[in-house]
Amino acid sequence: MLDRSSVRTDLALEDKERFESENVEVPGVILEEDYDEEREIRMSRVVIETEKGAKTMGKPVGTYITLEAPNLAVPDEDYHREISEELADYIWELIVRHDLQEKEDLSILVVGLGNRQVTPDALGPYVVDNLCVTRHIVKEYGKYAMGMEHANLVSAIVPGVMGQTGMETVEILRGVVAETKPHLMIAIDALAARNSRRLNRTIQIADTGINPGSGVGNHRNGITEETTGIPVFAIGVPTVVDAATIVSDTMESLIQALETSESLKGVGEVLRSYNAAEKYELVKELISPHLNGMFVTPKDVDEMIKQISYTISESLNLLFTNRTAS
Amino acid sequence: MLDRSSVRTDLALEDKERFESENVEVPGVILEEDYDEEREIRMSRVVIETEKGAKTMGKPVGTYITLEAPNLAVPDEDYHREISEELADYIWELIVRHDLQEKEDLSILVVGLGNRQVTPDALGPYVVDNLCVTRHIVKEYGKYAMGMEHANLVSAIVPGVMGQTGMETVEILRGVVAETKPHLMIAIDALAARNSRRLNRTIQIADTGINPGSGVGNHRNGITEETTGIPVFAIGVPTVVDAATIVSDTMESLIQALETSESLKGVGEVLRSYNAAEKYELVKELISPHLNGMFVTPKDVDEMIKQISYTISESLNLLFTNRTAS
Amino acid sequence: MLDRSSVRTDLALEDKERFESENVEVPGVILEEDYDEEREIRMSRVVIETEKGAKTMGKPVGTYITLEAPNLAVPDEDYHREISEELADYIWELIVRHDLQEKEDLSILVVGLGNRQVTPDALGPYVVDNLCVTRHIVKEYGKYAMGMEHANLVSAIVPGVMGQTGMETVEILRGVVAETKPHLMIAIDALAARNSRRLNRTIQIADTGINPGSGVGNHRNGITEETTGIPVFAIGVPTVVDAATIVSDTMESLIQALETSESLKGVGEVLRSYNAAEKYELVKELISPHLNGMFVTPKDVDEMIKQISYTISESLNLLFTNRTAS
Amino acid sequence: MLDRSSVRTDLALEDKERFESENVEVPGVILEEDYDEEREIRMSRVVIETEKGAKTMGKPVGTYITLEAPNLAVPDEDYHREISEELADYIWELIVRHDLQEKEDLSILVVGLGNRQVTPDALGPYVVDNLCVTRHIVKEYGKYAMGMEHANLVSAIVPGVMGQTGMETVEILRGVVAETKPHLMIAIDALAARNSRRLNRTIQIADTGINPGSGVGNHRNGITEETTGIPVFAIGVPTVVDAATIVSDTMESLIQALETSESLKGVGEVLRSYNAAEKYELVKELISPHLNGMFVTPKDVDEMIKQISYTISESLNLLFTNRTAS
Repeated sequence: MLDRSSVRTDLALEDKERFESENVEVPGVILEEDYDEEREIRMSRVVIETEKGAKTMGKPVGTYITLEAPNLAVPDEDYHREISEELADYIWELIVRHDLQEKEDLSILVVGLGNRQVTPDALGPYVVDNLCVTRHIVKEYGKYAMGMEHANLVSAIVPGVMGQTGMETVEILRGVVAETKPHLMIAIDALAARNSRRLNRTIQIADTGINPGSGVGNHRNGITEETTGIPVFAIGVPTVVDAATIVSDTMESLIQALETSESLKGVGEVLRSYNAAEKYELVKELISPHLNGMFVTPKDVDEMIKQISYTISESLNLLFTNRTAS
Repeated sequence: MLDRSSVRTDLALEDKERFESENVEVPGVILEEDYDEEREIRMSRVVIETEKGAKTMGKPVGTYITLEAPNLAVPDEDYHREISEELADYIWELIVRHDLQEKEDLSILVVGLGNRQVTPDALGPYVVDNLCVTRHIVKEYGKYAMGMEHANLVSAIVPGVMGQTGMETVEILRGVVAETKPHLMIAIDALAARNSRRLNRTIQIADTGINPGSGVGNHRNGITEETTGIPVFAIGVPTVVDAATIVSDTMESLIQALETSESLKGVGEVLRSYNAAEKYELVKELISPHLNGMFVTPKDVDEMIKQISYTISESLNLLFTNRTAS
Repeated sequence: MLDRSSVRTDLALEDKERFESENVEVPGVILEEDYDEEREIRMSRVVIETEKGAKTMGKPVGTYITLEAPNLAVPDEDYHREISEELADYIWELIVRHDLQEKEDLSILVVGLGNRQVTPDALGPYVVDNLCVTRHIVKEYGKYAMGMEHANLVSAIVPGVMGQTGMETVEILRGVVAETKPHLMIAIDALAARNSRRLNRTIQIADTGINPGSGVGNHRNGITEETTGIPVFAIGVPTVVDAATIVSDTMESLIQALETSESLKGVGEVLRSYNAAEKYELVKELISPHLNGMFVTPKDVDEMIKQISYTISESLNLLFTNRTAS
Repeated sequence: MLDRSSVRTDLALEDKERFESENVEVPGVILEEDYDEEREIRMSRVVIETEKGAKTMGKPVGTYITLEAPNLAVPDEDYHREISEELADYIWELIVRHDLQEKEDLSILVVGLGNRQVTPDALGPYVVDNLCVTRHIVKEYGKYAMGMEHANLVSAIVPGVMGQTGMETVEILRGVVAETKPHLMIAIDALAARNSRRLNRTIQIADTGINPGSGVGNHRNGITEETTGIPVFAIGVPTVVDAATIVSDTMESLIQALETSESLKGVGEVLRSYNAAEKYELVKELISPHLNGMFVTPKDVDEMIKQISYTISESLNLLFTNRTAS
């Protein structure tokens, strides 16, 4: 109802749902879903196939896989191992889609985006903290040092955010890619969801990289195959909702409630006679400018980030340093 | 308009303002204000003198001094030194009010409340990190070791939060007070404001301790003279707003706007005919239960907390380890 | 040969070995050993039974169990799970020895000693970071909230070091014990070994608490049943060697080598004619006073502390929040 | 006396002293000294002018300025401000020596070398934490946004260590330099001294970059003008001594003492008849192989690193974001 561009989500799934809730078909976009009842894991695969679909969705052409698991932030080691394995399978799916599975010694640069000093933005750095890097060992001693037939070269970097470095993150990464020539970049980032219910229970894997304006820290420039020269997979977990989004959504709900209210039905009649633009004007001026640059996050975000970052690093360790397991 | 108890602020100043905005006089409550134009520092002193005033304000009897300085989070060393000195003066005012100024060797336990792992809740631990503790030195070598005539005994503790310790914070502090017998406790805590404009530009000093339900982490039990046996001063900085508060405030504004809207005036007529309880019902059900336990905080909260915690620790260092300065 | 009191170890095993290397029997001290060849874990149990034995050993009467595992700092999840289980068994042995096994709702205070800011001293705080605390949940919801028949009440505290708090650690702990009345304290601490080979591959569990002068940070006052009122178990991992100890040991070796040298045999004859006191004088003055307050630690101490702290916290979680497993 | 190559120092001053203590002149090396009695700051400038001098000293041609201040780690704000200013002057001296003072908009990449997780190696990362970066602001808003006529473009990176990244640090830096094209790199690193007296009271500034084998973490590849394409200044603070160095030094002292001992004079006669190689053999085998990869560091290294890193970041802030001050 309100201006769609005013609300922000980094989840393709949420874009898709917006259209579905309004019964709009989106040409060039395919949605597949799967539900594992026993483990309560819901998988959604949004494939944006055409530029037209991309434009409608406001997200680039590519594959977006979302895992939703209500217990993602619960400390249960066995459950997390299962999620790690499932996540590894989907990353592998994207590797195959990009024809990288045949590389004898696949080299991967893992990038921990975000700001270690701001808890809900620290996901990327935490994943790198627990990552098993191997590039220097394989380079020095050969792959047999790893006790493996196929040795992937895993390297990792935590580039920091622009306020700390004075550089665009993509500048740093382009330089590192040029020097170390990995085949693939995997960027980990904390995301902004539109709906607070999605926080800390959702992981999105996409082969489209990080696009301008996404992430908790709002990357200004994209980190994509176009800007870095190699395929970029993005693993993201929504940890915040933009404060303005939550406020705008709630007002939208209030207006809807007023329109359909039995007890206040006179209000409904009047409101229904006004168009979207008029209502949007009304709402926009009520959103405090102080909310810009503010986000909403749960109080126990520290525990959640710790758990989920561990699940993701385990998944990458499983996939790349013990590939036979996958 | 809406139920006042549904919104939460840890700032006495905000409670006072609510009444003022409605032109309500609050008996038993005195407000003094002072504005330093040159340095843009606004001081407000709310003195709650009677139990009746306390009940109306929803805060205990005592003195609440608030400093507001728009540049509090800006990294300017000289400016921060000035704020530190001003803050020291007001803490000294409370010390005098409690007749502690005559103690030859005043002993102070500084308590860094909050969770170091969650950025907007880390204020207290950060203050303690930069505090100059002296109790062990004075105990071991006498006050002349400090090169001072009057040596205060400063001790400090970061007790952690209940989710980390399994204990109420007041249990820990009561035990430490019983063992080390300080004259005074100064508890530092991150607070929840009602208005996002107050974030990271406000410091409140109160002689009423920490009361149940206050602080970012919502202390369940009070940390007060009643529960610890010694006077407790609280230094607080609002770093978050409850997500439910922001949403509820915005809806309140929307309803007000609808009531007075020129363009939607039919709506206003209808709305005005409904009473507060009816409107509150309407709003309450729209606030997502997912917002419970969520807070709103600025993206650059890390820099702000770092700056302000440094200002507070400098203020305490100035006051207690170099008392002649005050 | 040199003055024994000049060298420092927190490991009862190392005290015992010194006597054994000189073929001295220590009355009142029993040593049992066990070696698990497959997993390369060596267990030693030193039981000091009499005050005479205690005096000779320079350690209080009690039981000291040491696990040595060369792979303790290697990141292998399955191996660590095994060590955690073994460690849990030995802690349980001490619980039984102290007749605490029958307590329906055993309440345990876990104490993370040491300084989080100094990597080799951060073991205790890191263990607490990963500990599952339950006291507040059991207190609030009853033990059935834990889904268990027997619910232990686990609480935890990171008291900090005297330089940060201005208080003796035992003052803080005595206060917390008086308030929360646990049955048992388990203190985790980084230790100083005498021999650098022991670093980061050894865990000592003792029922004698923490004694003055032990630990990386050199506790001035003991944390024992005598000073706290409840049994105190200590779990320690040697992470440093005192710099003066390493230097003194090496000089001792040099003098021994000179005494027995074939090529420098004139030296040997002369040296052998001097007594221990004369040689000690010679050595003492060569140890730089700058070495006081310095320690020796491995460069990869961060990885080691991370691994071992995780093994210990898992062991406590296994034992106390899932007791049927043990 | 012993093999010089067996001992390690990152301080040119210590190399120079070794020769001086033996009254050896080093051609091609100039030493200037200055002592500020009031502030107790000693400055030494070692200029290695020729390749021959470089070979003798074991350090590349260039200028090495060392400040020694016994109170460097003492928390005294005013004193630190003075050191910061002095340090800024010497960095400026090197800038002038490299003809960079005329650049209108000098762009500097500050590199925080070392491992944030290991306290004595965390100097570089800590300096970057408190650095004022400006490149992104000047790029976005022009230099007038900084309120200055001359705006330097300061950028910064904490590249991590090879064990965390799988990459040589110089690979990362070469990439970042190629992308962002700074005029000058300033690398901050924790150093190994030969003498424990030097720890945490010494700052070395050199225009020769970081050379292989230097630093606490032992960089394998150099970070120099040769490998990065731009001048590299290195600011280093010795925070550790190699454990093997301390042991070897002490044994050297013991042998010297034996040689000259009055009471053990028979020993001296014999020892003097043996040559350096024979004595070295004797000592070498006594140095435990366990000491490899170990370092000696003071217990209060956390406070020292915090103080000194702050002094260095202030110095850079003073110099580059407020250049008129220098």
